[in-house]
Amino acid sequence: MSASSRGNLLVVHGGGPTPVINASLYGVVQEALGSGEVGQVFGGVHGIKGVLAERLVDLGSASAETLASVRVSAGSALGSSRHKLSDEEAGQVLDLCQRRGVRWFLGTGGNDTMANCLRVHQECGRGDGALTVVGIPKTVDNDLAETDHCPGYGSAARYLAQSARDLCCDVASLPTPVCILETMGRNTGWLCAAAALAREGPDDGPHLIYVPERRFDRDRFLAEVKDVVGRLGWAVIAVSEGLRDSAGRSVAKASSAVQTDPFGHALQGGVGAVLSELVAEKLGLRCRYEKPGLLGRSSAILASDVDRAEAEGVGREAVRRALSGQSGVMVTLTADRSGAYRWGTDVVALDRVAGVERSMPAAFLSDHGPDVAKSFIEYAKPLIGGDLSTHQHVRTLHGPR
Amino acid sequence: MSASSRGNLLVVHGGGPTPVINASLYGVVQEALGSGEVGQVFGGVHGIKGVLAERLVDLGSASAETLASVRVSAGSALGSSRHKLSDEEAGQVLDLCQRRGVRWFLGTGGNDTMANCLRVHQECGRGDGALTVVGIPKTVDNDLAETDHCPGYGSAARYLAQSARDLCCDVASLPTPVCILETMGRNTGWLCAAAALAREGPDDGPHLIYVPERRFDRDRFLAEVKDVVGRLGWAVIAVSEGLRDSAGRSVAKASSAVQTDPFGHALQGGVGAVLSELVAEKLGLRCRYEKPGLLGRSSAILASDVDRAEAEGVGREAVRRALSGQSGVMVTLTADRSGAYRWGTDVVALDRVAGVERSMPAAFLSDHGPDVAKSFIEYAKPLIGGDLSTHQHVRTLHGPR
Repeated sequence: MSASSRGNLLVVHGGGPTPVINASLYGVVQEALGSGEVGQVFGGVHGIKGVLAERLVDLGSASAETLASVRVSAGSALGSSRHKLSDEEAGQVLDLCQRRGVRWFLGTGGNDTMANCLRVHQECGRGDGALTVVGIPKTVDNDLAETDHCPGYGSAARYLAQSARDLCCDVASLPTPVCILETMGRNTGWLCAAAALAREGPDDGPHLIYVPERRFDRDRFLAEVKDVVGRLGWAVIAVSEGLRDSAGRSVAKASSAVQTDPFGHALQGGVGAVLSELVAEKLGLRCRYEKPGLLGRSSAILASDVDRAEAEGVGREAVRRALSGQSGVMVTLTADRSGAYRWGTDVVALDRVAGVERSMPAAFLSDHGPDVAKSFIEYAKPLIGGDLSTHQHVRTLHGPR
Repeated sequence: MSASSRGNLLVVHGGGPTPVINASLYGVVQEALGSGEVGQVFGGVHGIKGVLAERLVDLGSASAETLASVRVSAGSALGSSRHKLSDEEAGQVLDLCQRRGVRWFLGTGGNDTMANCLRVHQECGRGDGALTVVGIPKTVDNDLAETDHCPGYGSAARYLAQSARDLCCDVASLPTPVCILETMGRNTGWLCAAAALAREGPDDGPHLIYVPERRFDRDRFLAEVKDVVGRLGWAVIAVSEGLRDSAGRSVAKASSAVQTDPFGHALQGGVGAVLSELVAEKLGLRCRYEKPGLLGRSSAILASDVDRAEAEGVGREAVRRALSGQSGVMVTLTADRSGAYRWGTDVVALDRVAGVERSMPAAFLSDHGPDVAKSFIEYAKPLIGGDLSTHQHVRTLHGPR
């Protein structure tokens, strides 16, 4: 088959980057170029919005050195956007693909990106069906349905676990008694829960973990903080930015209207500030808050090797599925934790994941207060890769507060 | 000289940990044990407050493995406190030292700790003068006078520079146009300025850097943000927590009274939240803020090798100065940047550094807007150790926004 007679492939990123989204991109490019079936491998520049403006880059012309570096870099090498495709725009994407000889369309992202992929796929159904659409999962939030976990989550979880461990080492040695670590997570607690992986011993922090899956009660929170500080002399508390009270109201201050994206998701943040003031005022305890925010999804240094391998794997699998003609599906990750951790891939129909947000199941949360259950630790631990850097020897010298 | 006839040494930590305060501790222990002149090496547990309660640990009995691990761990292995010694308490410290055979007293910390050391030294003058007092510099804030720079700063600067670089890589690839990185720094901009080390090329972020040495003007700030976003489509802005307006008022919200430590320093934070709301409201731009806070001084993984070596060096030098009978001094760092970076040590009288806060000199700030001068880059670059992890190849694919 001559290069000119072969179809082309287009890959596009949606939503926020992860530390390993570029590993998926690397997987796509390598698999496509190595297949012998793909002509040109196009990347959509700055997401589906860039595709609508026909901003495409020829990834096959990137040097091997560039691709190898991209594989281990954070950020999104193609750029990204948050744009909800209208039916008309989905038609425009289809037109562009036909014009540029694109037979395979891959969208890398979370549930909003999968909704865009589904729209393009449905638009194909109305046309001649010549475009194959496959989704590649990606989100640090870990909230895509139908997959054991999401590429990007393991690295962000590793960052948070290491950061929580470092933070606890600092706070345990200092007189500021309470410190709140605010994590991302608009509606789900997956990221916040990962802070639990910081612990090495029974009194290690974070001592309290508050996730949006459970309604937040101010009085109970204050009693729980008071109890930990009374017992240990200090407390580190992990809270998700998306905490809501029993009436469903955000615990963080409402932010202004401009802080909402085209999918209607408001920019959040501020829950750490609100709760640290609450602790200071009501309990009379000095209290700080830290909010690494985007740093937790942009650190290549703290990425998980397991996550990176899986991200590359779903990228490669998406190409294989697309070339075999499967359309309207997203690649999923499977996991076997019965012995040494092993992962695999499968697919699910796009309409099962588009716009669907997966919360933490109740079984992953403790029955005895604001914490995760042991089953969550078993679920998440293999995903963050090797052991974290330890501070055990530091604690042997100064002992308890 | 038999062990029982030799004097003992006491080392105490004050204030917040740095990623390398334990390297100084390691230097003290190794130098003291290796000198043949020191009997027992005591560590004060949880700072001068712990010393007042006679909480001492025998560091000579720690295993070689523990000490080697402590050397590269963040946090304070001895624990710390923020306590301002009264004259009476300084007398109590002296009494305790005489009772425990301590002839050399080393205090590791910033300008408040040096004030405590000075008080103990002055109390010796009133007694029989048998105690030699030497200060070991330590602060991520880099605000001690009379030293080229402070152990701890290089590592915190490296953390911020790498974090700013990672953050810019994320924001450049995303549709959220403005992101504010809030750094520590109550009254000085040294830490915030270090974010400038993130840049590799002319349009790289952080694009604007606001330090407390310059009064903050809201209108000018908004105009500067608008200009950068107009030119590049995005902006990353580094701001110090301690920004003040022309009337000297904190730009961050005032926090409650309990948030003040015994030296009268208020816990700050919130400037990122305040300014991101301002950008959203006045410019109509989506704006986030990130506040890594204590994470910037607790990461051993992101520490600077140069900083760690210097921290160990000042610990060793403090022991040598103490054993030679020099009292009432703090060890300082000297630096030669004329060729390959070389550092050395010297001493300064404690009364020149106790309670003195060193701001950034005007020559380190740009004359052309909110930024650092080239001379600051030349000053700070050697301190953070080797090159940062790069994202250059990522940017070659997607180009400008």
